[in-house]
Amino acid sequence: MRILGIDPGLGTLGWGVIDTDGVKHRLVQYGAVITQPKQPLPQRLRVIFKGVDQLMSTFQPDDVAFEELFFSKNITTGMMVSAARGVALVAVAEKTDNLFEYTPMQIKQAVTSYGKADKHQVQMMVRLMLGMEEIPRPDDAADALAVAITHANSMRAGHLFKIK
Amino acid sequence: MRILGIDPGLGTLGWGVIDTDGVKHRLVQYGAVITQPKQPLPQRLRVIFKGVDQLMSTFQPDDVAFEELFFSKNITTGMMVSAARGVALVAVAEKTDNLFEYTPMQIKQAVTSYGKADKHQVQMMVRLMLGMEEIPRPDDAADALAVAITHANSMRAGHLFKIK
Repeated sequence: MRILGIDPGLGTLGWGVIDTDGVKHRLVQYGAVITQPKQPLPQRLRVIFKGVDQLMSTFQPDDVAFEELFFSKNITTGMMVSAARGVALVAVAEKTDNLFEYTPMQIKQAVTSYGKADKHQVQMMVRLMLGMEEIPRPDDAADALAVAITHANSMRAGHLFKIK
Repeated sequence: MRILGIDPGLGTLGWGVIDTDGVKHRLVQYGAVITQPKQPLPQRLRVIFKGVDQLMSTFQPDDVAFEELFFSKNITTGMMVSAARGVALVAVAEKTDNLFEYTPMQIKQAVTSYGKADKHQVQMMVRLMLGMEEIPRPDDAADALAVAITHANSMRAGHLFKIK
């Protein structure tokens, strides 16, 4: 089964694709969709839409797992990221209903078996679990791989995390 | 010139189309894109995307004017509406760069010449300005026509309100 993990964001949307049999995971590819702050918002959102659409066509994932948004105290930032997430959701929903979402806490728990692990520990585990030589960059791509692994590890209970 | 006004929302996205020469406005059509709360969020966003995309194809507006989001104190609602707005922006941006945005205050000012007019006064003026027999329903469609009129009335300065 193939999983696309997405860490949504307006400036940087991280993504990572893994194949899994539920026990072993194999890295397929990872990266980030970048948008320029100088561009008007509608154009930036369009870049995200096209980018995610392209990921769906290229990798044809069975399931797609999102990292749940971290609520920003800055309401403008929160709105921007919500918009980016909404656009990414639509691009995915055009192709599949299998959308899932995990909180940062669930991701830490699943990847490091410890809910309070720090960012670096999560990234180290992602690197080890996927047999990578280096920690994936940017951070958003590492986070996207972490949420993909989280979904792979919760296959039996995965339906509990479907986006409603 | 043809203007599409949009009052973004997740459950109800109001829209209204007018033709204008900058002085006189003519109603073309209005309505709402409705999504069902029971549907999963990605599907609701998809309905909005398809709906706005269809409006763009059907009416081929020169300019599109959005009512600026009213910040909800409920952060979940705010995120939902931001997502809906983001999706609508992308559907518009696929067809045109002429996207504009006005605050509720600017709309009241433009339609009633009074920044503190109430909802009903705004709706009455929309009805009169477009020669309609009844106040347009739902409220979101009336709001969408109001923002279209606002843009029509600020043609010379319209570029100031372009969405950045």
